[in-house]
Amino acid sequence: MNTKKLNQSIVDKIAEMLDAEKIQSVLTEIEDFHPEDVAELLERLDLKHAKALLYALPDEKAAEVIIELDEEVRAQLLLDYSGKELAQEVIENLDSDDAADIISELPQERIHEVLQSLEDPKAREIADLLNYEEDTAGSIMAKELVKVNASWKLMRCLREMRRQAEKVEQVHAIYVVDDDDRLLGTLSLKKLLTTSTKTPVEEVFDRKIVSVSTDTHVEEVARLMRKYDLVVIPVVDSQGRLVGRITFDDVMDIMKEEAERDYQMASGLTQDVESADSIFALSKARLPWLLIGMLGGVISSRVVDFFDISQFPEMAAFMPLIAATGGNVGVQSAALVVQSLANDSFNESIIQKLLKDLGVGLVTALVCASLMFAVTAALGKPFNLSITVSVALISVIVFAAMFGTLVPLTLNRFKIDPAVATGPFVTTTNDVIGLFIYFSVAKIVM
Amino acid sequence: MNTKKLNQSIVDKIAEMLDAEKIQSVLTEIEDFHPEDVAELLERLDLKHAKALLYALPDEKAAEVIIELDEEVRAQLLLDYSGKELAQEVIENLDSDDAADIISELPQERIHEVLQSLEDPKAREIADLLNYEEDTAGSIMAKELVKVNASWKLMRCLREMRRQAEKVEQVHAIYVVDDDDRLLGTLSLKKLLTTSTKTPVEEVFDRKIVSVSTDTHVEEVARLMRKYDLVVIPVVDSQGRLVGRITFDDVMDIMKEEAERDYQMASGLTQDVESADSIFALSKARLPWLLIGMLGGVISSRVVDFFDISQFPEMAAFMPLIAATGGNVGVQSAALVVQSLANDSFNESIIQKLLKDLGVGLVTALVCASLMFAVTAALGKPFNLSITVSVALISVIVFAAMFGTLVPLTLNRFKIDPAVATGPFVTTTNDVIGLFIYFSVAKIVM
Repeated sequence: MNTKKLNQSIVDKIAEMLDAEKIQSVLTEIEDFHPEDVAELLERLDLKHAKALLYALPDEKAAEVIIELDEEVRAQLLLDYSGKELAQEVIENLDSDDAADIISELPQERIHEVLQSLEDPKAREIADLLNYEEDTAGSIMAKELVKVNASWKLMRCLREMRRQAEKVEQVHAIYVVDDDDRLLGTLSLKKLLTTSTKTPVEEVFDRKIVSVSTDTHVEEVARLMRKYDLVVIPVVDSQGRLVGRITFDDVMDIMKEEAERDYQMASGLTQDVESADSIFALSKARLPWLLIGMLGGVISSRVVDFFDISQFPEMAAFMPLIAATGGNVGVQSAALVVQSLANDSFNESIIQKLLKDLGVGLVTALVCASLMFAVTAALGKPFNLSITVSVALISVIVFAAMFGTLVPLTLNRFKIDPAVATGPFVTTTNDVIGLFIYFSVAKIVM
Repeated sequence: MNTKKLNQSIVDKIAEMLDAEKIQSVLTEIEDFHPEDVAELLERLDLKHAKALLYALPDEKAAEVIIELDEEVRAQLLLDYSGKELAQEVIENLDSDDAADIISELPQERIHEVLQSLEDPKAREIADLLNYEEDTAGSIMAKELVKVNASWKLMRCLREMRRQAEKVEQVHAIYVVDDDDRLLGTLSLKKLLTTSTKTPVEEVFDRKIVSVSTDTHVEEVARLMRKYDLVVIPVVDSQGRLVGRITFDDVMDIMKEEAERDYQMASGLTQDVESADSIFALSKARLPWLLIGMLGGVISSRVVDFFDISQFPEMAAFMPLIAATGGNVGVQSAALVVQSLANDSFNESIIQKLLKDLGVGLVTALVCASLMFAVTAALGKPFNLSITVSVALISVIVFAAMFGTLVPLTLNRFKIDPAVATGPFVTTTNDVIGLFIYFSVAKIVM
């Protein structure tokens, strides 16, 4: 890595330099820093120092740093910028998608102020982007792209691209459109470089192209880009006209958020938190599942009371085992369904799926039950109790497997995020129903 | 989307055409298919049809399809290819990284056969790639790239790039090297298109570049590319010479696998399975955690027996609640640590971390305990039992929070994947210790 790596001693050194108001030395020190690392530096400095440093950065660099900042730090640092400064020093130096992101975070009256200080076409482009619904391709796309007309010769393409490239930071694809701006395909850099400059675009461009429309959901965009290994995907409007493009890095962020959300849901956290958050925020994210789990615990206690445990006190010893196994099996089944749904790899019908889970349930149930039969016998437990535990285990595992499969499928059918199922609902329900089955079997056997 | 979408009726139609040996009509039918979709089609057809179709595809398209196939299907379909056919029809049409992937899956004697049928420099490049250790940047990089010498003028760059581009499918970056092939930076397409062709490269190229070395771990490569929003990252050897590049799509696959592994671990699956796998494979992935959970259940039963539950049978009703809460809190804490470690966002020391988790534990514990005190009172339980349940809950939650934090941190210290902690170990241990605390409190209070 050529870019310098940030560590605490560099942060301390820079804080000292800022205290001594040696701003020029700081700028030299961080000259080779990647914007992402400068952003991290600002986040670690105290607010006063961070403001001084951000203010001293050249406009273009400052803009690149600002988009990398944490949303909250960004809000604080931008507080002192007037609408006009924001427009001219920050927004003008950003691609339209990043600009729209930052503007959308501002309070309503400031949005208006900033948009008024921008010149067209930037102002119009951003206002346009702000209109798309959240989580659609339109809301995350950028307007900057390089496009050529199918009827042009390659020589003219090079000339026009030279003009367009001034505005575009990185050129990942050259789009080919017709006279009405409708997307026809792409022109590869390879073709552009290796074909005679007198050849018309239509003879050499690639018509196979995957595009999305402005209202495509971002998760679908992510899925398509991943499936087809795309760096960039073009966005078209309802008439098929090319209106923007989405690059892989925005999609990576979405994928990552999605995976983290599922993971947190599976671990019983109900809010997007990280360990650096406050004790209050962390407690708030944890309590809902704990409370649902406790509600399950209270219902379990009613089940135990209902069957009058004092009649068979020796049954108590295996209650944790029955409840835990039911919960575990349910989560496993639910997680597999959630993953299949996320990967869109669902070729089996619900019936096939349930039949298979019945099979898996039976196999695992028989293994677990025979093992527990042997263990309880070895522990010298009464024969009736061994039978009760084993029969209950089989019923609990099979039931939990089917239930764990059915719940996320049902949630998905009703357009609720199926990952919810790997959290509170399935585990708790299986705990309770597991105990119910256990005692019901006991009623018959013992 | 312009490319055609695959569905079951298309698959059936194509199978019929293949039965009638109308291979030419099939080729017309799938002409606009993306290689990824052709691969899916082959996976859905029976083996005989798939072989016939793959054989009929033009070599270049066949090669693109082959890299998108599932590893097992690929092995079956390539069985009939001779080493020479594999080399000339498939490998020659692939980038070196994909070629190395496919070759590395072959049996040892076939690898030799294929490499012998390849011409240099391809044979040497692939043999070279096969030498890197698994999970290093070297093992996933491609050799194909476009590079220019810092001392050249832009005019010469264009000429040389035209030559190099013939071999490179997509040009994401133009690398700048010195006379010894050492990586100096990148030249942007924008600069190349908008600067006078008489300018030397050294005056306009960008020296800020993030690179990795051949032995960098792939997860670190993924982290860097995500952090710095890179489409492609250059790979250098120990002397700093440019030897390859890694593109985002390979990294996306790694990220996805990583996230799925963590998710599966958190849901108690010990192997990488998907719901389409066989009943046997699915049962095998589920049993280990279930058995560990059952071992915990058996130990719990010993704890219950040890304290002689028949003395206080009314305690049994709240055992599930205590055990479940301990397990839940532990998983929440562990998941937060795992996520922090994965994001490399660990700025707090272990002591700070534990103190904070103590705080979060106390807050959630007090909320849960007061609630349960009220509930048990409302249910008409004896005062002593209410006290026991509440005090036990506080101890269990605080303990589980600290334990859930400490375990993944310790695993990580010993280079074991901390995500293991969100699976069996923490939950089961907390179940058992939770019951132990519950009965110990009862001994004192009741």
